[in-house]
Amino acid sequence: MKAAVYKGYGLPLEIEEVPNPAPKEGEVLVKVASTGICHSDLHLLSGELVGPLPNGFIIGHEIAGWVEKIGENVKNPYGLKEGDPVLVSWIVPCGICRYCANGKENYCKDNAKRLVGLIGINGGHAEYLTVPEIAVIPLAKNLDPYYSSPIACAYGTAYNALKSANATSGKSVVIVGAGGVGSAAIQLANSIGLNPIVAVDIDENKLKSAKLLGATHIINANENDARAKVLEALEDGADIVYETKPYPDFKLSLEVVKSGGTIVVTGLGGFSTLAQIPVTLFVSRGITLIGSLGYRPRIDLPDLVSLASSGKIDIKKLVSHIYTPDRINEAYENLKKGLHIRAIIRWN
Amino acid sequence: MKAAVYKGYGLPLEIEEVPNPAPKEGEVLVKVASTGICHSDLHLLSGELVGPLPNGFIIGHEIAGWVEKIGENVKNPYGLKEGDPVLVSWIVPCGICRYCANGKENYCKDNAKRLVGLIGINGGHAEYLTVPEIAVIPLAKNLDPYYSSPIACAYGTAYNALKSANATSGKSVVIVGAGGVGSAAIQLANSIGLNPIVAVDIDENKLKSAKLLGATHIINANENDARAKVLEALEDGADIVYETKPYPDFKLSLEVVKSGGTIVVTGLGGFSTLAQIPVTLFVSRGITLIGSLGYRPRIDLPDLVSLASSGKIDIKKLVSHIYTPDRINEAYENLKKGLHIRAIIRWN
Amino acid sequence: MKAAVYKGYGLPLEIEEVPNPAPKEGEVLVKVASTGICHSDLHLLSGELVGPLPNGFIIGHEIAGWVEKIGENVKNPYGLKEGDPVLVSWIVPCGICRYCANGKENYCKDNAKRLVGLIGINGGHAEYLTVPEIAVIPLAKNLDPYYSSPIACAYGTAYNALKSANATSGKSVVIVGAGGVGSAAIQLANSIGLNPIVAVDIDENKLKSAKLLGATHIINANENDARAKVLEALEDGADIVYETKPYPDFKLSLEVVKSGGTIVVTGLGGFSTLAQIPVTLFVSRGITLIGSLGYRPRIDLPDLVSLASSGKIDIKKLVSHIYTPDRINEAYENLKKGLHIRAIIRWN
Amino acid sequence: MKAAVYKGYGLPLEIEEVPNPAPKEGEVLVKVASTGICHSDLHLLSGELVGPLPNGFIIGHEIAGWVEKIGENVKNPYGLKEGDPVLVSWIVPCGICRYCANGKENYCKDNAKRLVGLIGINGGHAEYLTVPEIAVIPLAKNLDPYYSSPIACAYGTAYNALKSANATSGKSVVIVGAGGVGSAAIQLANSIGLNPIVAVDIDENKLKSAKLLGATHIINANENDARAKVLEALEDGADIVYETKPYPDFKLSLEVVKSGGTIVVTGLGGFSTLAQIPVTLFVSRGITLIGSLGYRPRIDLPDLVSLASSGKIDIKKLVSHIYTPDRINEAYENLKKGLHIRAIIRWN
Repeated sequence: MKAAVYKGYGLPLEIEEVPNPAPKEGEVLVKVASTGICHSDLHLLSGELVGPLPNGFIIGHEIAGWVEKIGENVKNPYGLKEGDPVLVSWIVPCGICRYCANGKENYCKDNAKRLVGLIGINGGHAEYLTVPEIAVIPLAKNLDPYYSSPIACAYGTAYNALKSANATSGKSVVIVGAGGVGSAAIQLANSIGLNPIVAVDIDENKLKSAKLLGATHIINANENDARAKVLEALEDGADIVYETKPYPDFKLSLEVVKSGGTIVVTGLGGFSTLAQIPVTLFVSRGITLIGSLGYRPRIDLPDLVSLASSGKIDIKKLVSHIYTPDRINEAYENLKKGLHIRAIIRWN
Repeated sequence: MKAAVYKGYGLPLEIEEVPNPAPKEGEVLVKVASTGICHSDLHLLSGELVGPLPNGFIIGHEIAGWVEKIGENVKNPYGLKEGDPVLVSWIVPCGICRYCANGKENYCKDNAKRLVGLIGINGGHAEYLTVPEIAVIPLAKNLDPYYSSPIACAYGTAYNALKSANATSGKSVVIVGAGGVGSAAIQLANSIGLNPIVAVDIDENKLKSAKLLGATHIINANENDARAKVLEALEDGADIVYETKPYPDFKLSLEVVKSGGTIVVTGLGGFSTLAQIPVTLFVSRGITLIGSLGYRPRIDLPDLVSLASSGKIDIKKLVSHIYTPDRINEAYENLKKGLHIRAIIRWN
Repeated sequence: MKAAVYKGYGLPLEIEEVPNPAPKEGEVLVKVASTGICHSDLHLLSGELVGPLPNGFIIGHEIAGWVEKIGENVKNPYGLKEGDPVLVSWIVPCGICRYCANGKENYCKDNAKRLVGLIGINGGHAEYLTVPEIAVIPLAKNLDPYYSSPIACAYGTAYNALKSANATSGKSVVIVGAGGVGSAAIQLANSIGLNPIVAVDIDENKLKSAKLLGATHIINANENDARAKVLEALEDGADIVYETKPYPDFKLSLEVVKSGGTIVVTGLGGFSTLAQIPVTLFVSRGITLIGSLGYRPRIDLPDLVSLASSGKIDIKKLVSHIYTPDRINEAYENLKKGLHIRAIIRWN
Repeated sequence: MKAAVYKGYGLPLEIEEVPNPAPKEGEVLVKVASTGICHSDLHLLSGELVGPLPNGFIIGHEIAGWVEKIGENVKNPYGLKEGDPVLVSWIVPCGICRYCANGKENYCKDNAKRLVGLIGINGGHAEYLTVPEIAVIPLAKNLDPYYSSPIACAYGTAYNALKSANATSGKSVVIVGAGGVGSAAIQLANSIGLNPIVAVDIDENKLKSAKLLGATHIINANENDARAKVLEALEDGADIVYETKPYPDFKLSLEVVKSGGTIVVTGLGGFSTLAQIPVTLFVSRGITLIGSLGYRPRIDLPDLVSLASSGKIDIKKLVSHIYTPDRINEAYENLKKGLHIRAIIRWN
């Protein structure tokens, strides 16, 4: 099969022929339709995320496709058949431990040893991949796998962050950063009844896109009175502030969050950055800060499939660029330049 | 002022001139814009709900209007001013007890002695009424009080029922009964990310309306295979079944609710009806049955104002009939005949 | 090995030599220390629960012992080694499906095909048994497996019921039925901060025992003023009523539960009994009724091990009778006579 | 009446005769039994907390006593009568706003203008005080008001912190700081089913006391291997770390908290301290940091009364020192020296 193969630090990925993988016991072979071009890949390729990658590794962790073959001894609770559209989760919980039982599978310790397209399991920048069945989530029949890969990372990350922050109808939200994850968060906030939805960024194009995706207010953080404008858009501060950027300083967040409110942060990359937290302010105003990692494949992804399938979120509005596999290095270059909302590669 | 006055059992309400009320300490005088024609009024007028009504009482408990005058010693946490649009809650919590502190103000014991338009406090079928400030909830500036009264009963009841059943995004719901409350529930379910939304009724017109309001599937309960059709619309049974009719038998509900799922029921009237519950089925399938009374004025109504203000629910689609005060008895007759989705009276 | 073998409907179990089981892939071989004598076994043996049992089947579903051998390809997230003390759960979730991910593994559909000692998997009335690793839960080193089996059914059932009813500190509880599960519930209620804890039964011996286990009030349901006495023991009705008997009529429960309160019921056996539910009372008082099945092995059992290990519950106080394997039929006879709080069989 | 009166910055409190207060409308006159000597008073007296105090002000915010007189127009949902034992809450919610309705009354905006013994309302270092009825919480008949004042601050603060961190049975907790609040937290953790309960301090006497109050492990933070010892006491990190000290640096907390776990912090005083938070660690390990202010008088205090009344917490074990009013300045000096677990003043 054709795959984008890692050839060493600083070198471009190479599209080459590699052997087709075969599903082992408990695994599923998935034919890839699309994979996302995600910021975390930049940290992965630079070695920041999990250290040096082995040569020959295949990255790509935001994946949609079809079941190609079901391995031996698969439990298959949803009765998947060959040809069924599916998502592949990059988080692969063990399915046995207490985290996995208790709605915290994204913190299962097996994440330290295996993450699809990131650690130990070849990813989706290829025509096929094999993964343990627990990472295969049914996609609705009315959703096109050629467009659905962003569910399996951008939307998943945004959704789990919002759920962690107990985002329920009638609450207000400020979303800092209107890139792929932030834009997904805007659509999601809109689809589950949050209001107002205030998008903050420094890129006017991203803010314009944010408005189209459902932000009720867009505010450029570089303007002098950004803080005042955010507060004006809200009645009594924000119930939730979602920092989607990897290196937040929480300054704006702390100024606009309501007493008893929540700041949630996602985004990996670089383990040295420290934020300055005024502890007594946290206490006197009853603020909660939540770090949220990825998503819970078996909880968040089915919810997202339902939201997308019913038209409450429109993935096609998020996907700003579609590349063919041979342009994959260009895609990552354009990502660095901030040109995408979300870009995907089409396979097969 | 003009008011629709109760004149005795079995007699029509009479529109007559009565003295204008004045706000006492801690009270607000509200100028009425609109009041809803609600099923509970039929039970109220028949004496079933709270026994005989005193002659001269003014009913009408679904109320929107404007602040006309603020009484002495009002705390006014939201800074309401004369002329501001508001909702009036028929539930008037004491504000002091543990129920009131703990998100259960609809079960505050003061409900037994006072409910606007139902017990002890004159209601909104009049040009003005006075209520304790705790029952006055700010309406968004962009919402028209002439249309907003259904928030204060139909939507409130539906929303609290859904919240009690922990209705969150990605869950499936079956709504049994597509009258005023059921129709509000359909819009609300849609606005907060539920899917599928299966509406069940026996009235084809109400089902057609349900489809327009956001039901993904409509099913006539009188058809032979109603149960099979409901199950077909769902993937694995319903996370939530909402019985909006006053006398449910739970038969369909128990057949379509998922293991670990919830049945929620609202609707008053007649305290003698018994439902047959197969206890071991409840246990073996882990079913929860929730009775939900009215709404929590200070929690549910602000959420609903936010959902309406942002356009996520459209009240005008729910209001099927608008009457002038002199046609109020005709309005209740038409309600009995099942002609309304939701009807309102316009005052002032 | 020695085992108590089912020989046919109406016949006594026979203690005989059968081949030792061997762990298959993903399974663990457990050496049994003790098994509980549980009411559900009576329903099982009478065919009521799951229909006729196959001859040769080994029942016994409340099991503690030691790891004897770990099979191939076991994930073993807790690093279990041979000789480690463990509990065996009779619920064996698939570990893959959405119920299993989301804290609802007791409703996993695999329960319909396999339950240790009940359906499809030989149980613990034997010297050894093999089970999938997901059903093996580590026991604390300071707990004696010869006494710990009641955690794996009586305590588990009671704990999951209390958790389902959101039993948290400061809440009041009425426990109807002071048998094995009810007695466990009393100890548990005490250990997690509930107060008052009102035990109701018709057997004076069980009520005396209830008092010793931590009930703050004991009330004989046969007395004329039982209802009044229960209400007197509570300040404002019960936050939670736990019906531990298999055929509740909810009469007392509905009279003593607080507005906004919860009735929870466990216990299987006989699928024909119907309870009469006054629906409008449920609505006007905001009552919740929860059916709760068994327990969540990976969530509830570790919590219970922690409560027992720290001395917050004392299992030895629950165990009223200890039998040798050869007296197993006598043990079930005595259970029918109501002689036990909880009886166990000692193996090995 | 006799009261300890504030005479100016840096001056000792003076015990002198002042006029007896009289309850205004909606207020209750309370005869004081005991008041606590709390760390926050030191910050209050130094001007750090709310700026300069008015001369003549009476501090003391941890208060128990008896109803002396009930003012006009008091709603009195619990039917309090003269002579009934009560707690007085220093947090006085408005009872009207959304925070007050929704279980967040400790963040009601009225806190900025009035707090008993802190801002605008004379406190309990006196024979009598008057407070709005919402701040008066019934005490159980079997609890001695001469000892019960610590419920109204030390226990309240600890309990709300634990509840904010969703501390439920079976979870593990590390409590950093074994002073008044930390010691209360240890008792509370024990009473609601947490285990292990690891107490960390640098004062050996406080650690010895912590052991007696229910800590399962005590660890001196000054020892070289404190972190290793904490981890050894836990199975898999701490579900909850509670920092009771005013200036935490979170270093130990972050090393011992479990993935998906929670750090909660209370304690006021000094608004300039900044903690360094490694943001990507928060994300990769899914950590939640919660600031928790005081307590919710109508939710937390009744729970605590129930826990104390049933003997699950023993306040007498927390009270290390009892002073007469004339020794109040000495009491604050000894507090500064770290001599108390919790000290109280006895009045009347």
